[in-house]
Amino acid sequence: MEEVLNRVNNVKDLRKLNIKEKQKLADEIRELILKTVSKTGGHLASNLGVVELTIALHSVFKTPRDSIIWDVGHQTYVHKILTGRKDKMDTLRQLNGIAGFPKTSESEFDCFNTGHSSTSISVALGMARANKLANINNKVIAVIGDGALTGGMAQEALNDAGASNTDVTVILNDNEMSISKNVGGMTYFLSKLRTKKFYTRTNARIKMVTQKIPGVGKYIVRIAQKIKRGIKQVFIKKMYYEDIGFTYLGPVDGHDIEKLESVFKTSKSIKGPVLIHVVTKKGKGYKIAEENPDKFHSTSSFNIETGKPVKEKKDDYAKVFGNKLLELAKKDDKIVAVSAAMIDGTGLKEFKKQLPNRIFDVGIAEQHALGMAAGLAKNGFKPVVSIYSSFYQRAYDQVIHDICIQNLPVVMCVDRAGIVGNDGETHQGIFDMAFFSIIPNITIMAPKNFEELEKMLEEAVLLNSPVVIRYPRGGEGETKFEKCDNVELGKAEILKEGKDLTIVAIGKMVERAMEVSNLLKEQGIDCEVINARFLKPLDTCTIETSIRKTRNVISIEDGILRGGLGTSINELINESKIDGVHMKAYGYDDIFVQHGSVAELEKLNGLDAKSIALSIQILEKLSEL
Amino acid sequence: MEEVLNRVNNVKDLRKLNIKEKQKLADEIRELILKTVSKTGGHLASNLGVVELTIALHSVFKTPRDSIIWDVGHQTYVHKILTGRKDKMDTLRQLNGIAGFPKTSESEFDCFNTGHSSTSISVALGMARANKLANINNKVIAVIGDGALTGGMAQEALNDAGASNTDVTVILNDNEMSISKNVGGMTYFLSKLRTKKFYTRTNARIKMVTQKIPGVGKYIVRIAQKIKRGIKQVFIKKMYYEDIGFTYLGPVDGHDIEKLESVFKTSKSIKGPVLIHVVTKKGKGYKIAEENPDKFHSTSSFNIETGKPVKEKKDDYAKVFGNKLLELAKKDDKIVAVSAAMIDGTGLKEFKKQLPNRIFDVGIAEQHALGMAAGLAKNGFKPVVSIYSSFYQRAYDQVIHDICIQNLPVVMCVDRAGIVGNDGETHQGIFDMAFFSIIPNITIMAPKNFEELEKMLEEAVLLNSPVVIRYPRGGEGETKFEKCDNVELGKAEILKEGKDLTIVAIGKMVERAMEVSNLLKEQGIDCEVINARFLKPLDTCTIETSIRKTRNVISIEDGILRGGLGTSINELINESKIDGVHMKAYGYDDIFVQHGSVAELEKLNGLDAKSIALSIQILEKLSEL
Repeated sequence: MEEVLNRVNNVKDLRKLNIKEKQKLADEIRELILKTVSKTGGHLASNLGVVELTIALHSVFKTPRDSIIWDVGHQTYVHKILTGRKDKMDTLRQLNGIAGFPKTSESEFDCFNTGHSSTSISVALGMARANKLANINNKVIAVIGDGALTGGMAQEALNDAGASNTDVTVILNDNEMSISKNVGGMTYFLSKLRTKKFYTRTNARIKMVTQKIPGVGKYIVRIAQKIKRGIKQVFIKKMYYEDIGFTYLGPVDGHDIEKLESVFKTSKSIKGPVLIHVVTKKGKGYKIAEENPDKFHSTSSFNIETGKPVKEKKDDYAKVFGNKLLELAKKDDKIVAVSAAMIDGTGLKEFKKQLPNRIFDVGIAEQHALGMAAGLAKNGFKPVVSIYSSFYQRAYDQVIHDICIQNLPVVMCVDRAGIVGNDGETHQGIFDMAFFSIIPNITIMAPKNFEELEKMLEEAVLLNSPVVIRYPRGGEGETKFEKCDNVELGKAEILKEGKDLTIVAIGKMVERAMEVSNLLKEQGIDCEVINARFLKPLDTCTIETSIRKTRNVISIEDGILRGGLGTSINELINESKIDGVHMKAYGYDDIFVQHGSVAELEKLNGLDAKSIALSIQILEKLSEL
Repeated sequence: MEEVLNRVNNVKDLRKLNIKEKQKLADEIRELILKTVSKTGGHLASNLGVVELTIALHSVFKTPRDSIIWDVGHQTYVHKILTGRKDKMDTLRQLNGIAGFPKTSESEFDCFNTGHSSTSISVALGMARANKLANINNKVIAVIGDGALTGGMAQEALNDAGASNTDVTVILNDNEMSISKNVGGMTYFLSKLRTKKFYTRTNARIKMVTQKIPGVGKYIVRIAQKIKRGIKQVFIKKMYYEDIGFTYLGPVDGHDIEKLESVFKTSKSIKGPVLIHVVTKKGKGYKIAEENPDKFHSTSSFNIETGKPVKEKKDDYAKVFGNKLLELAKKDDKIVAVSAAMIDGTGLKEFKKQLPNRIFDVGIAEQHALGMAAGLAKNGFKPVVSIYSSFYQRAYDQVIHDICIQNLPVVMCVDRAGIVGNDGETHQGIFDMAFFSIIPNITIMAPKNFEELEKMLEEAVLLNSPVVIRYPRGGEGETKFEKCDNVELGKAEILKEGKDLTIVAIGKMVERAMEVSNLLKEQGIDCEVINARFLKPLDTCTIETSIRKTRNVISIEDGILRGGLGTSINELINESKIDGVHMKAYGYDDIFVQHGSVAELEKLNGLDAKSIALSIQILEKLSEL
């Protein structure tokens, strides 16, 4: 079956193949990826789209001496297969297995870690400048999608690279869409490159004349169109990329290995920055993904025949958020939604369908998303923005400068907050509570379950100031809580009274607190469990009262310890001068968290209920000594 | 003297003037600005450049119903003069006076607070979308400089605005330079609009033919050039701004009120996004500033006749940093410098002069600056980046995602850390310690004086991991410290031993700690003064030992309290189980800090030595009760 792939263990083997064998290899790699991702889950459509591109890159460029920086990094499965990791594909994204993104720790072929969008050109330019200063002649190539190119960082880098007089190659992998349906003028601009609108008039005229010649007419039209396309490309090249300093090559069919190799070879002799425009198709070769590239951008395990997920998808926080927001928006016409190329991922698909004029998808552009939301808020609307936790890092200044200084009523929903699992370091949303909580004027809440998220959203759109609501990837826990009271600003909820130990938890860790409480009950420790609900303003009164009673307190949170709930409670203890209190904070302690399942990672960090309970028992023993 | 300005108290008065009067008004406003800024200090060159532009805007657009968003916001002095604040100009940037930036709290004409670069298009688009949804027909205008346009956020916004089908006007105030000499391909692109390179060949041919006709030749050449310039503009318009969805108008002379008004009037009837390209000259009308726009971008008080500063400029932290880095770079050829359009402001002018190939000015593009630095570091160099504290907020994800996850040796110098004074909320650098300290792998230090900055820089380039060094605007204090030991990773310095109270301070507040200690000595309180040097890793050993001795501790820092030095000491106290300790943290408590002099603001926030000493005496009295 896999007769070529069996012979290809590394790039040296690849470079020995002829073009026919490489084409066969492409088919075999597609099968391996499909087989793998249908089991492990992961990014499918983008990887199927870059099979030939990756083969051609490693054929022409002398990796690992030459460096390829993969923007976003989720499209590196082919790259991993070709660089000695094909036998580990079944461990993809699993704990201690190979990562779903490039990792320098994994292979010398992974020259830079990526995970977030739009970073590759900056990094490539830095590496190329280093090479130039060190008189090293290796090539540096950034591979970036058209969606990622809307990100401001990529634009900043193009600008600097264009004027840099440095040998750096940018491969624009144009698949006509980013993660969800692409938006914005940039796309429009690129689509003009592909379609033929620009020269339509001339075209029509030629057609008119030539089609009158029977038989030969159509052939001539085709040739004429080809020539005009060529002219247009030269034209665009001159006008845009060359104007900012690049040599522009392409567009080239991204599924034609021979043509790709040819243009890559050409590019190697060009001095200064080069941009190669490659057109690919997401999901290429797997029809179900070609037709639903959105659905197969990032997928859980699925049946290859039908494309259906193996496990039926349950409700998740994103969906609950989206439905509730739609409900609220129907009642309040000032509510609008803002997304940064994540309509599907953040649960806003139905909102978009029902209220298309009141949702703004700005593309991969988090800075602009928050700045634009500030403008909406300033003129009387209530924008609700939903972005993943780790991507809010990209809009930090906008939250401070554009929203919070003016105390504007923007609701910032933080999806994928806390540990997300298999996507690893770059995607774990563990910093948001800490970096948001230092900003004046901001309110921060996190729900323990779906129902509480709904209540919080109701409260958030009424507050006339910036609000953060954070919630995790996936579904709620199994614990059944009593029906939620309405959420009141700055008020915690006592879920269980007890006399020995106060457990303060927030968000999804409230369920964990209940589990710990149950485990400790068996050991004769009577816990008081408090659902903080608000990190800011913290309900110091409820918590202080409890601590004065129990004299022992732990905090549990799904985030970095410094600057989070534990920090707040430490400060509360010192400020309120409660002496002799034992306090321990549970969370992630000054580390980046690797990939693996959420449960595995929590256990590894001592945050599963058993580990926490055990650690408390040990602490109790020690203090008895 | 000011015969027109005397009659103009608001925009209604302005709108009654004829063109001649407006031109006279422009001259009078220039004089008022020159008179004001020469006394108060502030942004000069950019304001002199937009006098006619501002007059024309308020003449044609119906402010405050129509909204003008001023990008960066430092060029709003003319706007303030025309909107009822001319009599308050002598209070500019002073405590309780009018701000140097637009403030919604100050006037209904200031429709959005700005201070950082590249935000205006996002905000304008948000406001315009709000107007559209609410069926309000008011215009929204963003005024943005060519320098600010390199910022990624502006590019993201252009992209979204172009495809938005929303009535929003972007005025590109193209003054051929950003804060320092402009860089990058975008500038090159714009300069092509101004110069005539593109049609040079045709031009040369026409010249050849026509110049042979005696007398008439030159005239024809001029007309032909004009026509070609026109063609070129249409061409560019079609190819770039119109391709991303804008209607392009211009370029128009930004000092010709009549032409400006005409193009603004035209723009009002155009549906959808409009971009008006206005060409202005920084420093216009004040020859010394025209010739040195860099020097007069932001200035302290100066003599109008000579342009010389009133007070002789002393050494400052930026200069000490620049000189030391140059010295180190001469010895270590792996050291390179990175700046984001702030070569002058961050003290790197001499470095650029002496080692031009080893410094990279990327323009107003903080995200890219840090990403590019990561690439340099990955390929073996030691990049030292210098950016103002409040602008690091714009590169937060790059610090986390591109630098710290891979533990890359980038030295991040944080200039203008802490209170900067007269620039106000948007520029106070009070958040950096808090938001950096939550990131794993990072080392954070702050020097007490110039000498310690030099030692820290020496240490930083040797550490093979991400380092932050923060230091304030301006010079060191007056306290003479003993000669500095070499800085050792994670080691604090005991400056004075004492038995009653431990004072832990960091950075410029170490001097404050010494002053407090002296004041308290007079009250019989014997202080131990510790210069923390490192916020991360904190020297817990030295500090804990001192606290166990004194049982009383205060921390003093020039930053937001949460997540800073005070937080670290609170956690140390709880973790080390020292009971009965009195702790108080001095810093900025969950507020944005307004404008005023640094000394005034510190006093206002109880952070001058006297206030701290007094508060400690009161606390001491209370605990005696």
